[in-house]
Amino acid sequence: MATVRVYLDFISPYAYFGWRNVRTLANERDLTLDVRPVVFAALLDHHGQLGPAEIPAKRVWTFKHIVRYAMLRGIPLVGPATHPFRTLTALRIAALPADPETQHRRVDDLFDAIWGTGGIDGGDDDVIAAALTERGHDGAALVEAAKAPESKARLKDLTAEAIEAGVFGVPTFVVGDELFWGNDSLEYVALNLDGEDPLDGVVVDRFLSRPRGADRRR
Amino acid sequence: MATVRVYLDFISPYAYFGWRNVRTLANERDLTLDVRPVVFAALLDHHGQLGPAEIPAKRVWTFKHIVRYAMLRGIPLVGPATHPFRTLTALRIAALPADPETQHRRVDDLFDAIWGTGGIDGGDDDVIAAALTERGHDGAALVEAAKAPESKARLKDLTAEAIEAGVFGVPTFVVGDELFWGNDSLEYVALNLDGEDPLDGVVVDRFLSRPRGADRRR
Repeated sequence: MATVRVYLDFISPYAYFGWRNVRTLANERDLTLDVRPVVFAALLDHHGQLGPAEIPAKRVWTFKHIVRYAMLRGIPLVGPATHPFRTLTALRIAALPADPETQHRRVDDLFDAIWGTGGIDGGDDDVIAAALTERGHDGAALVEAAKAPESKARLKDLTAEAIEAGVFGVPTFVVGDELFWGNDSLEYVALNLDGEDPLDGVVVDRFLSRPRGADRRR
Repeated sequence: MATVRVYLDFISPYAYFGWRNVRTLANERDLTLDVRPVVFAALLDHHGQLGPAEIPAKRVWTFKHIVRYAMLRGIPLVGPATHPFRTLTALRIAALPADPETQHRRVDDLFDAIWGTGGIDGGDDDVIAAALTERGHDGAALVEAAKAPESKARLKDLTAEAIEAGVFGVPTFVVGDELFWGNDSLEYVALNLDGEDPLDGVVVDRFLSRPRGADRRR
């Protein structure tokens, strides 16, 4: 059974779409999903990059794009009460040790509460607890467990591991050694899993070995 | 006849794909293409953003992604001899006053020389001149014309206008007041042109008016 590693942060609507889509892919092809919650802001810090919500014109475009995407596919998208918001509690809950089915259901329900039907403030612990309880979990216990030092350390370690693995955005999917960035790249994940990845390693190496001709002054 | 404004820079393989694709769309729907060469590096500077080639892990992913994209669709992709490279001469040539057909053919051939079949160093004036001449233009005269002060001013103005219009990346397509970023967004451009844009302005306004819950310290 093939495994797909899924790096996600609840800050990203594309992680919401990507999670739904990779869940479907996993059902269709009997895949194991290895969920890796990571702090997107830490990836941005590491790479010196800005997120889409940090560039005003890109923020407007992104919100329009996700509304189009969701409406065309009938995906619920109430969206969070604030954005960006502090995702640490939700991420630590998603990273708590649990059997895969339980963990995946927590991720489903956190995304649904924050981006899907809930419209909650994903940065408010009490609100998260209530939203999870409403969806059949023990919300208060999960929020409490997320506060434990080992929960904080776990998320930190996962984020460091993601940076080490070359992850620069969310969602990112990894199959074997191949990294696929973005919800849209699931098309290529599927091809890779089917042994039909069109990637020509020789061509890529030829690209990567070319010299830089000019760089911006920074 | 509807008009699509096309913001592009030869630095971007996605601008190459997007240009090919919007040319096809324009033929299918009898559109006018209003070509706007812009300096991508200046957009990045303005928004304080990094380009894909400036983040090592993203650079690797991007090259893999474009190879996959091109191979799946049978698009020639030799790619430039250096990357990133100085695109000013190519952009100034693309921005020279000309009837649309001539201008579009120049853009076609610059993209073909740099990304498609040519594999040239897109930052070298002599190489650009030779590549254009090979493709039926007077390459030397075009490179010479690009050096005129008014050619430099034209590109500067186009770039400033793009920033003013909220353009943050290339390719960007604008239909009426709607901005669409990225080669992939042509799917939405087509829907918009057909009067089937699923965008719900009310929903978007609801998103844009939400408060920010947390921001990174920078």
